[in-house]
Amino acid sequence: VKIARVGVIGDGGWGTAMALVAHQAGCRVTIWGAFPDYVAEQRRTRRNPRFLAGVTIPRPIGYTADLAEAAAGADLLISAVPTPFLRSVAQRLAAAHAGRTPICSLTKGIENVTLLRPSQILRQTLGRVPIAVLTGPSHAEEVARGIPTTVVVASRNRPLADAIQHALSGPTFRIYWGTDPVGAELGGALKNVIAVAAGICDGLGYGDNTKSALIARGLVELTMLGAAMGARRATFMGLAGLGDLVTTCISRHGRNRFVGEAIGRGKTLPQVLKSMKMVPEGVHTVKSVRDLSRRLKIDAPISMAVYRILYEGASPRAEVAGLMRRPLGRE
Amino acid sequence: VKIARVGVIGDGGWGTAMALVAHQAGCRVTIWGAFPDYVAEQRRTRRNPRFLAGVTIPRPIGYTADLAEAAAGADLLISAVPTPFLRSVAQRLAAAHAGRTPICSLTKGIENVTLLRPSQILRQTLGRVPIAVLTGPSHAEEVARGIPTTVVVASRNRPLADAIQHALSGPTFRIYWGTDPVGAELGGALKNVIAVAAGICDGLGYGDNTKSALIARGLVELTMLGAAMGARRATFMGLAGLGDLVTTCISRHGRNRFVGEAIGRGKTLPQVLKSMKMVPEGVHTVKSVRDLSRRLKIDAPISMAVYRILYEGASPRAEVAGLMRRPLGRE
Repeated sequence: VKIARVGVIGDGGWGTAMALVAHQAGCRVTIWGAFPDYVAEQRRTRRNPRFLAGVTIPRPIGYTADLAEAAAGADLLISAVPTPFLRSVAQRLAAAHAGRTPICSLTKGIENVTLLRPSQILRQTLGRVPIAVLTGPSHAEEVARGIPTTVVVASRNRPLADAIQHALSGPTFRIYWGTDPVGAELGGALKNVIAVAAGICDGLGYGDNTKSALIARGLVELTMLGAAMGARRATFMGLAGLGDLVTTCISRHGRNRFVGEAIGRGKTLPQVLKSMKMVPEGVHTVKSVRDLSRRLKIDAPISMAVYRILYEGASPRAEVAGLMRRPLGRE
Repeated sequence: VKIARVGVIGDGGWGTAMALVAHQAGCRVTIWGAFPDYVAEQRRTRRNPRFLAGVTIPRPIGYTADLAEAAAGADLLISAVPTPFLRSVAQRLAAAHAGRTPICSLTKGIENVTLLRPSQILRQTLGRVPIAVLTGPSHAEEVARGIPTTVVVASRNRPLADAIQHALSGPTFRIYWGTDPVGAELGGALKNVIAVAAGICDGLGYGDNTKSALIARGLVELTMLGAAMGARRATFMGLAGLGDLVTTCISRHGRNRFVGEAIGRGKTLPQVLKSMKMVPEGVHTVKSVRDLSRRLKIDAPISMAVYRILYEGASPRAEVAGLMRRPLGRE
C-alpha cells in the first residue's frame, strides 16, 4: 500500500487535525463535511471555527461536501465521523464509492443498541475493505499546534498499518503499530466514560489523588470489559488504553471531562448539553457500556455510577462515597 | 496484630498527613522529628508550616525529638524519612529501641551507591521486624484535607497488611492490600524520575498529549526495570505504579514535577534546588536508576534523558526530540 492521496471523512476537530498531519507528511488531502454551507465557509476562510478554532488550514487541503469526490482516487480514507452518525455516513459512502480503498478509523465509541465497534459498523456497510484503527492520547487542538504526540495504528492487515505508520509519521507525530484493533478501538471508546467520572470529581472539588485513583481503577474496569469483548489485556496498558485515558481525564480540552465537571457542580445532563456544539461520545457510550456489562456479566462500578448520575438523577457525591465504601479488598 | 498506638518517624508532609489519618482512625499518635526546635514549634503551634502548610494538627497528636519515646509502646511505627537520611535514622532507631515493633514504610526512593530499597535498608539496620510498604497516589496536602484517596499496603506478612488496612482505613482514605512489597516500593521510587520528565515537558510548553505519552511509555520503562528487580509486572498497573505515576506527573503539588518544570524553562539543577526546602526524591533516584539500568541491561530512555538533563547539561528540547525520533516500532 502506497499512500499519496488521502480523503478525510468528517470535518470535526480530530478529522481536521489528521488532515493537517497528512498534509504535513506530504499527502494530497481532501476533507469531506456533511454540511455544504459549512464546507464552503471552511474552503473560503481556511478556518474551522466550530471544531478547531485558531488553526489555519493550508490552501492545498481540499474541501468537498460530495462523498464520491472525497473518495475518488484516494489511497486511504480517514474516517472521523462520531459514532451516532457513522452508520448513515458509511451507507452513503458505500453508495457513492464502489472501490476497496483502505480505511483508517478514528471514531471512538460503541454503537447503542447494536453494541458494535466503529470498525464493525464500517465492515457491515462497506464490506471487505482493509481497516486500521488509529488511537492514542491525541487532543486535536494540540496535534494541530505541533505539540509532540504519539498514537498507535492497529490492524490485522499488517501492510496497511505499516503504510499508515510510514506515510503519516512526522517529527511531532509519532505512530507506533499494533496488532489488536479490537483493544485499540475499545480503549478509545471506554475511556470516555471514565473521563466523565474524572470530570465529576473535578466538579465536586476533589483532587489529584482522587483522579489518579479513578484512572487506576478505571483502567482495571476497561481492561476487564475489553478482555471480555475479545481485546488483549496488554493493549490497555499502552497508548490506546492508559495513554488515552490519562489525557482525556486531565485535559482542559476534554469534552467528556467537561460534561462531568458541570454535572459535578450541580447541573443536569440536558442543561450541560444545551451549551455544547456536539454531544461528547462518552455520553452515548455509557449506555452501551451498561448493556455490555450486563450481557457479559462484568462488574463496571465506575461506569455504572456515571450512568446513574447522567440518566437516573443519582447524586454525584453519594456515588463517589459509594465507590469509596466498597468492601476493603485486594487490589 | 492490633494497632492502637502509632509512632510516626519523620515530620515531613507525608508523615504528618499519615499521622492525621491514624489519629482520625482512632489511634494514639506520636510524631518524631529530627530537629528539636522545629518539633517544639510544631507541638506549640499545632502547625507544620515548612512541610504541610495550612493544616491544624489536633492536640492529641504528640510530638517528640526522642526516637525511643516515639517507639515506646507503639504497635506500629510509620517510617516517613527521605531515602538519603533513612539509613542514619534507622541506625539511631535501632540503638534507641530494642523491640520488634512492625514498621510501615512510606519512603519512596532507591539508595544511591547501594541501590537498596527503603525496606531493605530498614531490614539491614533493624533486623527481622515485620515490614509493610504503603504507597499510591496520595499527595499529603490532599490527604490532610480529606480529599478521597486510595493507597495500597503491601507486605509478605499478610496479618500485618491486614492490620494496617483495617486500623487506618476511613471514609476518605481507602487502603487496598497487596502481596508485592518490592513492586509497591519500586513503583513509588521510579515514578519520581518520570515525574521530573513530565515537569520538563510542562516547562517546554508541551501539552497533555506529550504528557500522556510520557506516562504511558514511562510506565513501560518502570515495569521493565521493576520486573528485572524482582517485582511483579501487574503491580505497576495498579495504584502503586500507574496511579502514583499519574498523580505525581499531573499535580501542582508535585515537587519532582516542579523541579523538571523549572529546568524545562531554562534553569539549572543547582539554581532550582536553591529555592526548595528539600531535594525531591527523584533528583537522587535518577542516579540509582542510571546504575540499575546499566547493571541490569534494561533500556530506560526516559530516565536516562532526565539524568543527562539534570547532571550532564543536556538540552531538554533536544532530549525530547531525541525520544520522538527513536525508530518507529511496535508498541
